[in-house]
Amino acid sequence: MDKIPILRMGPFLLVTIQIDLYDRLALNLETDLINMVHKTGARGVLIDISAVSIVDSFMGRILGNIASMTRVLDAETVVVGMQPAVAITLIELGLSLHGVHTALDVERGMALLQTKHSLDDEMAGDDADDTE
Amino acid sequence: MDKIPILRMGPFLLVTIQIDLYDRLALNLETDLINMVHKTGARGVLIDISAVSIVDSFMGRILGNIASMTRVLDAETVVVGMQPAVAITLIELGLSLHGVHTALDVERGMALLQTKHSLDDEMAGDDADDTE
Repeated sequence: MDKIPILRMGPFLLVTIQIDLYDRLALNLETDLINMVHKTGARGVLIDISAVSIVDSFMGRILGNIASMTRVLDAETVVVGMQPAVAITLIELGLSLHGVHTALDVERGMALLQTKHSLDDEMAGDDADDTE
Repeated sequence: MDKIPILRMGPFLLVTIQIDLYDRLALNLETDLINMVHKTGARGVLIDISAVSIVDSFMGRILGNIASMTRVLDAETVVVGMQPAVAITLIELGLSLHGVHTALDVERGMALLQTKHSLDDEMAGDDADDTE
Protein backbone atom coordinates (compact mmCIF):
# COMPACT_ATOMS: atom_id res chain seq x y z
CA MET A 1 0.00 0.00 0.00
CA ASP A 2 2.05 2.93 -1.25
CA LYS A 3 -0.85 5.30 -1.71
CA ILE A 4 -2.71 7.31 0.89
CA PRO A 5 -6.45 7.21 0.13
CA ILE A 6 -8.23 10.52 -0.42
CA LEU A 7 -11.87 10.47 0.66
CA ARG A 8 -14.46 12.77 -0.84
CA MET A 9 -16.89 14.28 1.66
CA GLY A 10 -19.26 16.66 -0.12
CA PRO A 11 -17.26 19.71 -1.25
CA PHE A 12 -14.19 18.69 0.78
CA LEU A 13 -11.48 16.03 0.61
CA LEU A 14 -10.21 14.14 3.64
CA VAL A 15 -6.79 12.54 4.02
CA THR A 16 -5.69 10.61 7.11
CA ILE A 17 -1.94 10.26 7.52
CA GLN A 18 -1.16 7.05 9.40
CA ILE A 19 2.27 6.10 8.17
CA ASP A 20 5.59 7.88 7.90
CA LEU A 21 5.66 10.12 4.86
CA TYR A 22 8.85 9.07 3.11
CA ASP A 23 9.88 10.84 -0.09
CA ARG A 24 7.95 9.01 -2.80
CA LEU A 25 4.79 8.60 -0.70
CA ALA A 26 4.76 12.33 0.06
CA LEU A 27 5.24 13.30 -3.59
CA ASN A 28 2.50 10.83 -4.63
CA LEU A 29 0.18 12.36 -2.03
CA GLU A 30 0.87 15.88 -3.35
CA THR A 31 0.18 14.85 -6.96
CA ASP A 32 -2.90 12.78 -6.08
CA LEU A 33 -4.37 15.58 -3.96
CA ILE A 34 -3.88 18.26 -6.60
CA ASN A 35 -5.36 16.01 -9.30
CA MET A 36 -8.31 15.17 -7.04
CA VAL A 37 -8.96 18.86 -6.22
CA HIS A 38 -8.88 19.60 -9.94
CA LYS A 39 -11.13 16.66 -10.87
CA THR A 40 -13.74 17.13 -8.15
CA GLY A 41 -13.64 20.91 -7.82
CA ALA A 42 -13.20 20.47 -4.07
CA ARG A 43 -13.25 23.69 -2.02
CA GLY A 44 -11.23 22.38 0.91
CA VAL A 45 -8.78 19.71 1.99
CA LEU A 46 -8.68 18.25 5.51
CA ILE A 47 -5.45 16.52 6.54
CA ASP A 48 -5.78 14.50 9.73
CA ILE A 49 -2.43 13.94 11.47
CA SER A 50 -3.77 12.60 14.78
CA ALA A 51 -1.81 9.36 14.26
CA VAL A 52 1.43 11.25 13.65
CA SER A 53 3.57 11.36 16.77
CA ILE A 54 6.90 12.36 15.23
CA VAL A 55 7.28 15.27 12.89
CA ASP A 56 10.34 16.57 11.06
CA SER A 57 11.12 19.48 8.77
CA PHE A 58 10.33 17.34 5.69
CA MET A 59 6.78 16.66 6.91
CA GLY A 60 6.36 20.35 7.77
CA ARG A 61 7.45 21.34 4.27
CA ILE A 62 5.10 18.80 2.64
CA LEU A 63 2.12 20.20 4.57
CA GLY A 64 3.11 23.72 3.55
CA ASN A 65 3.51 22.65 -0.10
CA ILE A 66 0.09 21.00 -0.19
CA ALA A 67 -1.54 24.10 1.31
CA SER A 68 0.13 26.39 -1.26
CA MET A 69 -0.71 24.12 -4.19
CA THR A 70 -4.38 23.70 -3.25
CA ARG A 71 -4.72 27.46 -2.65
CA VAL A 72 -3.72 28.07 -6.27
CA LEU A 73 -6.68 25.85 -7.21
CA ASP A 74 -8.97 27.86 -4.88
CA ALA A 75 -9.18 25.24 -2.13
CA GLU A 76 -8.18 25.81 1.50
CA THR A 77 -6.16 23.26 3.48
CA VAL A 78 -6.83 22.58 7.16
CA VAL A 79 -4.52 20.35 9.21
CA VAL A 80 -6.47 18.69 12.03
CA GLY A 81 -5.80 16.50 15.06
CA MET A 82 -2.26 17.63 15.78
CA GLN A 83 -0.89 16.10 18.97
CA PRO A 84 0.49 18.55 21.55
CA ALA A 85 3.99 17.05 21.28
CA VAL A 86 3.93 17.56 17.51
CA ALA A 87 2.94 21.21 17.94
CA ILE A 88 5.84 21.71 20.36
CA THR A 89 8.32 20.05 17.99
CA LEU A 90 7.12 22.07 15.00
CA ILE A 91 7.62 25.37 16.79
CA GLU A 92 10.97 24.27 18.23
CA LEU A 93 12.06 23.39 14.67
CA GLY A 94 11.09 26.91 13.65
CA LEU A 95 8.23 25.67 11.43
CA SER A 96 5.13 27.70 12.22
CA LEU A 97 3.18 26.15 9.30
CA HIS A 98 2.67 29.57 7.76
CA GLY A 99 -0.36 29.61 5.46
CA VAL A 100 -1.75 26.34 6.80
CA HIS A 101 -5.00 26.50 8.77
CA THR A 102 -5.33 24.19 11.75
CA ALA A 103 -8.22 22.85 13.83
CA LEU A 104 -8.50 20.54 16.82
CA ASP A 105 -10.44 17.75 15.09
CA VAL A 106 -12.12 16.87 11.79
CA GLU A 107 -15.50 18.28 12.85
CA ARG A 108 -14.04 21.68 13.76
CA GLY A 109 -11.89 21.65 10.63
CA MET A 110 -14.96 21.01 8.52
CA ALA A 111 -16.84 23.81 10.33
CA LEU A 112 -13.89 26.14 9.61
CA LEU A 113 -13.93 25.23 5.92
CA GLN A 114 -17.69 25.69 5.77
CA THR A 115 -17.37 29.17 7.30
CA LYS A 116 -14.64 30.10 4.81
CA HIS A 117 -16.69 28.60 1.99
CA SER A 118 -19.78 30.67 2.79
CA LEU A 119 -17.64 33.77 3.43
CA ASP A 120 -16.10 33.32 -0.03
CA ASP A 121 -19.56 33.09 -1.55
CA GLU A 122 -20.65 36.25 0.26
CA MET A 123 -17.54 38.13 -0.88
CA ALA A 124 -18.13 36.96 -4.44
CA GLY A 125 -21.66 38.29 -4.05
CA ASP A 126 -20.34 41.63 -2.74
CA ASP A 127 -17.91 41.88 -5.65
CA ALA A 128 -20.78 41.33 -8.04
CA ASP A 129 -22.69 44.16 -6.31
CA ASP A 130 -19.70 46.48 -6.60
CA THR A 131 -19.54 46.07 -10.35
CA GLU A 132 -23.10 47.21 -10.81
CA MET B 1 2.24 4.42 14.77
CA ASP B 2 0.47 1.29 16.00
CA LYS B 3 -2.97 2.83 16.28
CA ILE B 4 -5.48 3.49 13.54
CA PRO B 5 -7.12 6.88 14.12
CA ILE B 6 -10.90 6.99 14.50
CA LEU B 7 -12.43 10.23 13.25
CA ARG B 8 -15.73 11.54 14.55
CA MET B 9 -18.05 12.96 11.90
CA GLY B 10 -21.31 14.04 13.49
CA PRO B 11 -23.20 10.91 14.62
CA PHE B 12 -20.79 8.60 12.79
CA LEU B 13 -17.22 7.37 13.16
CA LEU B 14 -14.81 7.01 10.25
CA VAL B 15 -11.84 4.67 10.07
CA THR B 16 -9.48 4.45 7.10
CA ILE B 17 -7.46 1.26 6.89
CA GLN B 18 -4.15 1.97 5.13
CA ILE B 19 -1.84 -0.63 6.56
CA ASP B 20 -1.92 -4.38 6.95
CA LEU B 21 -4.04 -5.37 9.93
CA TYR B 22 -1.75 -7.68 11.86
CA ASP B 23 -3.02 -9.29 15.06
CA ARG B 24 -2.37 -6.64 17.72
CA LEU B 25 -3.34 -3.72 15.47
CA ALA B 26 -6.63 -5.40 14.61
CA LEU B 27 -7.44 -6.15 18.25
CA ASN B 28 -6.53 -2.56 19.22
CA LEU B 29 -8.83 -1.27 16.48
CA GLU B 30 -11.71 -3.44 17.73
CA THR B 31 -11.27 -2.24 21.32
CA ASP B 32 -10.77 1.41 20.36
CA LEU B 33 -13.82 1.39 18.09
CA ILE B 34 -16.12 -0.18 20.67
CA ASN B 35 -14.90 2.25 23.35
CA MET B 36 -15.38 5.18 20.98
CA VAL B 37 -18.92 4.06 20.03
CA HIS B 38 -19.71 3.77 23.72
CA LYS B 39 -18.15 7.13 24.62
CA THR B 40 -19.62 9.16 21.75
CA GLY B 41 -22.93 7.37 21.35
CA ALA B 42 -22.17 7.06 17.63
CA ARG B 43 -24.97 5.56 15.50
CA GLY B 44 -22.75 4.28 12.70
CA VAL B 45 -19.21 3.26 11.82
CA LEU B 46 -17.71 3.73 8.35
CA ILE B 47 -14.67 1.60 7.52
CA ASP B 48 -12.86 2.72 4.38
CA ILE B 49 -10.78 -0.07 2.81
CA SER B 50 -10.03 1.63 -0.52
CA ALA B 51 -6.30 1.36 0.19
CA VAL B 52 -6.55 -2.37 0.90
CA SER B 53 -5.53 -4.41 -2.12
CA ILE B 54 -5.01 -7.78 -0.45
CA VAL B 55 -7.54 -9.38 1.85
CA ASP B 56 -7.41 -12.63 3.78
CA SER B 57 -9.75 -14.56 6.03
CA PHE B 58 -8.34 -12.79 9.12
CA MET B 59 -9.28 -9.37 7.75
CA GLY B 60 -12.71 -10.69 6.76
CA ARG B 61 -13.26 -11.99 10.29
CA ILE B 62 -12.13 -8.70 11.88
CA LEU B 63 -14.63 -6.74 9.76
CA GLY B 64 -17.37 -9.19 10.73
CA ASN B 65 -16.41 -8.95 14.43
CA ILE B 66 -16.48 -5.15 14.39
CA ALA B 67 -19.91 -5.15 12.74
CA SER B 68 -21.32 -7.60 15.31
CA MET B 69 -19.81 -5.72 18.26
CA THR B 70 -21.05 -2.30 17.16
CA ARG B 71 -24.51 -3.72 16.43
CA VAL B 72 -24.79 -4.76 20.08
CA LEU B 73 -24.17 -1.09 20.94
CA ASP B 74 -26.90 -0.03 18.44
CA ALA B 75 -24.52 1.26 15.76
CA GLU B 76 -24.40 0.00 12.17
CA THR B 77 -21.13 -0.72 10.36
CA VAL B 78 -20.66 0.07 6.67
CA VAL B 79 -17.55 -1.04 4.80
CA VAL B 80 -16.81 1.37 1.94
CA GLY B 81 -14.42 1.67 -1.01
CA MET B 82 -13.78 -2.03 -1.58
CA GLN B 83 -11.66 -2.65 -4.67
CA PRO B 84 -13.11 -5.07 -7.24
CA ALA B 85 -10.21 -7.50 -6.76
CA VAL B 86 -10.86 -7.57 -3.01
CA ALA B 87 -14.55 -8.33 -3.57
CA ILE B 88 -13.58 -11.22 -5.88
CA THR B 89 -11.09 -12.62 -3.34
CA LEU B 90 -13.58 -12.37 -0.46
CA ILE B 91 -16.21 -14.38 -2.31
CA GLU B 92 -13.65 -16.90 -3.56
CA LEU B 93 -12.54 -17.35 0.07
CA GLY B 94 -16.16 -18.03 0.94
CA LEU B 95 -16.44 -14.87 3.06
CA SER B 96 -19.60 -13.04 2.08
CA LEU B 97 -19.25 -10.51 4.94
CA HIS B 98 -22.59 -11.57 6.36
CA GLY B 99 -24.10 -8.82 8.50
CA VAL B 100 -21.75 -6.14 7.17
CA HIS B 101 -23.27 -3.37 5.05
CA THR B 102 -21.21 -2.14 2.11
CA ALA B 103 -21.22 0.99 -0.06
CA LEU B 104 -19.16 2.20 -3.01
CA ASP B 105 -17.63 5.23 -1.29
CA VAL B 106 -17.74 7.22 1.94
CA GLU B 107 -20.46 9.58 0.70
CA ARG B 108 -22.80 6.71 -0.23
CA GLY B 109 -21.95 4.90 2.99
CA MET B 110 -22.88 7.98 4.97
CA ALA B 111 -26.12 8.35 3.00
CA LEU B 112 -26.91 4.68 3.79
CA LEU B 113 -26.28 5.24 7.50
CA GLN B 114 -28.40 8.39 7.47
CA THR B 115 -31.29 6.48 5.85
CA LYS B 116 -31.00 3.70 8.45
CA HIS B 117 -30.73 6.28 11.19
CA SER B 118 -33.92 8.09 10.21
CA LEU B 119 -35.69 4.75 9.57
CA ASP B 120 -34.75 3.69 13.10
CA ASP B 121 -36.18 6.91 14.48
CA GLU B 122 -39.40 6.39 12.54
CA MET B 123 -39.72 2.81 13.75
CA ALA B 124 -39.10 3.97 17.31
CA GLY B 125 -41.87 6.49 16.74
CA ASP B 126 -44.18 3.74 15.41
CA ASP B 127 -43.40 1.56 18.40
CA ALA B 128 -44.28 4.42 20.68
CA ASP B 129 -47.60 4.81 18.82
CA ASP B 130 -48.32 1.09 19.19
CA THR B 131 -48.05 1.24 22.93
CA GLU B 132 -50.74 3.87 23.18
